[in-house]
Amino acid sequence: MPDTTNRPQLTDTAALDQLKADVLECNLELVRRGLVLYTFGNASGIDRRLGLVVIKPSGVAYDALKPSDMVVTDLEGKPAPGSLRPSSDLATHLLLYKEFPAIGAVVHTHSEYATAWAQAGREIPAYGTTHADYFYGPVPVTEVLSAEEIGGDYVLNTGKAIAKRFRGLDPMATPAVLVAGHAPFCWGRDPHEAAHNAVVLEAVARMAYLTSTLRPQCAGVSQALLDRHYFRKHGANATYGQKK
Amino acid sequence: MPDTTNRPQLTDTAALDQLKADVLECNLELVRRGLVLYTFGNASGIDRRLGLVVIKPSGVAYDALKPSDMVVTDLEGKPAPGSLRPSSDLATHLLLYKEFPAIGAVVHTHSEYATAWAQAGREIPAYGTTHADYFYGPVPVTEVLSAEEIGGDYVLNTGKAIAKRFRGLDPMATPAVLVAGHAPFCWGRDPHEAAHNAVVLEAVARMAYLTSTLRPQCAGVSQALLDRHYFRKHGANATYGQKK
Amino acid sequence: MPDTTNRPQLTDTAALDQLKADVLECNLELVRRGLVLYTFGNASGIDRRLGLVVIKPSGVAYDALKPSDMVVTDLEGKPAPGSLRPSSDLATHLLLYKEFPAIGAVVHTHSEYATAWAQAGREIPAYGTTHADYFYGPVPVTEVLSAEEIGGDYVLNTGKAIAKRFRGLDPMATPAVLVAGHAPFCWGRDPHEAAHNAVVLEAVARMAYLTSTLRPQCAGVSQALLDRHYFRKHGANATYGQKK
Amino acid sequence: MPDTTNRPQLTDTAALDQLKADVLECNLELVRRGLVLYTFGNASGIDRRLGLVVIKPSGVAYDALKPSDMVVTDLEGKPAPGSLRPSSDLATHLLLYKEFPAIGAVVHTHSEYATAWAQAGREIPAYGTTHADYFYGPVPVTEVLSAEEIGGDYVLNTGKAIAKRFRGLDPMATPAVLVAGHAPFCWGRDPHEAAHNAVVLEAVARMAYLTSTLRPQCAGVSQALLDRHYFRKHGANATYGQKK
Repeated sequence: MPDTTNRPQLTDTAALDQLKADVLECNLELVRRGLVLYTFGNASGIDRRLGLVVIKPSGVAYDALKPSDMVVTDLEGKPAPGSLRPSSDLATHLLLYKEFPAIGAVVHTHSEYATAWAQAGREIPAYGTTHADYFYGPVPVTEVLSAEEIGGDYVLNTGKAIAKRFRGLDPMATPAVLVAGHAPFCWGRDPHEAAHNAVVLEAVARMAYLTSTLRPQCAGVSQALLDRHYFRKHGANATYGQKK
Repeated sequence: MPDTTNRPQLTDTAALDQLKADVLECNLELVRRGLVLYTFGNASGIDRRLGLVVIKPSGVAYDALKPSDMVVTDLEGKPAPGSLRPSSDLATHLLLYKEFPAIGAVVHTHSEYATAWAQAGREIPAYGTTHADYFYGPVPVTEVLSAEEIGGDYVLNTGKAIAKRFRGLDPMATPAVLVAGHAPFCWGRDPHEAAHNAVVLEAVARMAYLTSTLRPQCAGVSQALLDRHYFRKHGANATYGQKK
Repeated sequence: MPDTTNRPQLTDTAALDQLKADVLECNLELVRRGLVLYTFGNASGIDRRLGLVVIKPSGVAYDALKPSDMVVTDLEGKPAPGSLRPSSDLATHLLLYKEFPAIGAVVHTHSEYATAWAQAGREIPAYGTTHADYFYGPVPVTEVLSAEEIGGDYVLNTGKAIAKRFRGLDPMATPAVLVAGHAPFCWGRDPHEAAHNAVVLEAVARMAYLTSTLRPQCAGVSQALLDRHYFRKHGANATYGQKK
Repeated sequence: MPDTTNRPQLTDTAALDQLKADVLECNLELVRRGLVLYTFGNASGIDRRLGLVVIKPSGVAYDALKPSDMVVTDLEGKPAPGSLRPSSDLATHLLLYKEFPAIGAVVHTHSEYATAWAQAGREIPAYGTTHADYFYGPVPVTEVLSAEEIGGDYVLNTGKAIAKRFRGLDPMATPAVLVAGHAPFCWGRDPHEAAHNAVVLEAVARMAYLTSTLRPQCAGVSQALLDRHYFRKHGANATYGQKK
């Protein structure tokens, strides 16, 4: 997976400022699209060259957020001096950055339909082409965490459960997961793409809910249709959108 | 449960004016969040030092409400001279203030999903962490009122049915109830928190509805996960939000 | 049922102008509340003293409507000279005015949840107090019209099917009906009340849908609760709202 | 089916400019009505005299679209020099223009309820008069495409599957189809009507979803009611709307 930024190398400060702006915009997109109630969501981005992560502060109202409120941490989660307290889900984000080298941003929401599938402990089947355009197969659900995992480093263990579920899967081909009994995490090459994937996941979850009600035994799309739509938007032979 | 107001003692008049403004704002938040159709809802707050309750007037359109329209009553429900007629549910609110000494505000709505659970006579199971962040166990449902209870002091008896259902439960750990065949009541330490809880209850009820459809036999979260999330946001070891 | 207008007798022209404004406002309220897609709805009002009905014109976009576009007809449906063509459902409205002497306005929409109950041919059970505050018992559904009734004077026969269904029922105690396979009609003492009832019917239908899904065998409220809530808002002993 | 434009013959340039404006407006109506998430939709129109089709460009954000961005192609799909890349569904549109000579515009969306029916592989039954006003019978669903059809000229084969499903059906009497596992296509005499049909289809799909839940075995409207409503709005004896 190549580096997606083709812009000229920024100074460290400029790069970090841009990332803060992008992470804030990503958080705000989640609110605009109705995925976030009050402060039930968080987004982050990583600058792998600098070894720094930018994440939303914990429990601050969205309409008050400024780029400078975004919390900068190192890859171990140590915030820069004077920062606000980072999102309580930081350790999950950091684990995903470590395990999935191609991703540049992580988004967590409690969006209603995706959360309902997570609470039900059911993966979201690939019922149609909307799904196939973004997710190359079912959106998987993690195992339920054990009492030991919950009682220990819970937030980190949430990340480990996701990583375990993706053994043998390509996280860039299925950029979302449902944490059982909890809610979805999504990711992408950058904050814009991660937020976009979270918005699409919720729409896909909503349509899958309706489909499942209309036809509980629905088998979903064929492998041929899954391939056709996924590779229409992804990879070297993509035909969607304007030439770049 | 400590007094939650750390602000310097206000004069009686200033304290009451502040409470009127808070109760009005609480009512308006319910409208903004889509929990109230026309006048189907009411909110109140109590100043326990003064022994006074402030509540929305009955059947007045929200967009016309001013702080001075809020009705002040004593703990027996006697309004101050010249007041508008208080909300028809006043007696339920007063009973809850008497039975639950830690609460500072009560909210009643007919929000659609919570009301559907109440009409179905089903408690809302703790299906996920969104629920566990706010409600430490299922949101309980009262018994159905008898013809005698309905024919007698109905509004007061509604409060009594709630109090009876909470015997052995901590109302601050589960700040909401479903009155069977009717609708939810919520509460909190102050009007802001009570409205917030009512908004979250509706979102939780909506996600529980979807979860129940997707997996009717869903067992819900484990005790470990319930503990972990609830105490993440509540109590001495809370880690959510900014340090205060 | 007493005349509800306490205002001094208006001149005929002023009374008719007022009714046109009220009927237009009633139509617009249906749009604001999301009950009407494009032109799928109509509302009318009657001035029984003048023997005239005012109704929305057929198929005109709502945002272009002016009070003077409202069509005035006599009780046989003959429009005043130079009028636009009246709503295609006029004959149903006129039949209801003839059969239900206490009503002053009629509203017809294809609001989604009420229409779904009508399409399913199921009455809406009195599942809770929101329902009982407005409808004293289930919202009834008409019989399916025969091929003869449909092939004949269909619009008039729709009104006759409603009237037949209300034999033995008080239309003021249950101010709404579902026409099987079609959609709801509502009414009230004046256009404001008829629109209000249509909005509440849709909310009640939505909550009943959810309730029915959560508990298919739900028995609904007791007769005692139905009485208590209905008479709280209606009749000589009503206690809801401000004294008048 | 007569030509629906009664306006005086435009010059070729003026006619094409008008079509571009109409196609853009049609695309924007889909967004305003909530049928389109991000860029998941496309609309086109045809000028049969000029032998030219105007279609939305692929993957361009709606709020940036100008009439001059609309792509003009010939009937084989060859874009005018300097055009943006046309919608990736162009070949389906072109096939429909070839097979259905009376249509003047095609709309494709992934609107949520219609897409759910398509994903479930179920036709939308004619459950009520809202449906019958627009669709003279069930909204049909295509066969599932074979791996060969998907692996070959997939977009063209989608159009062929639609045409095959309409053998023996009048596309003007049922101006919509569900592509199995994919989403709806709608059409009309011009872009305005095609967008209108797409909006109504989604409302009809939503009400049918609710109806199917409330009464899984619902038989739908009688042939007599289907005839009565459909011919109320269509054909020489239509009585709906203002005289033209």
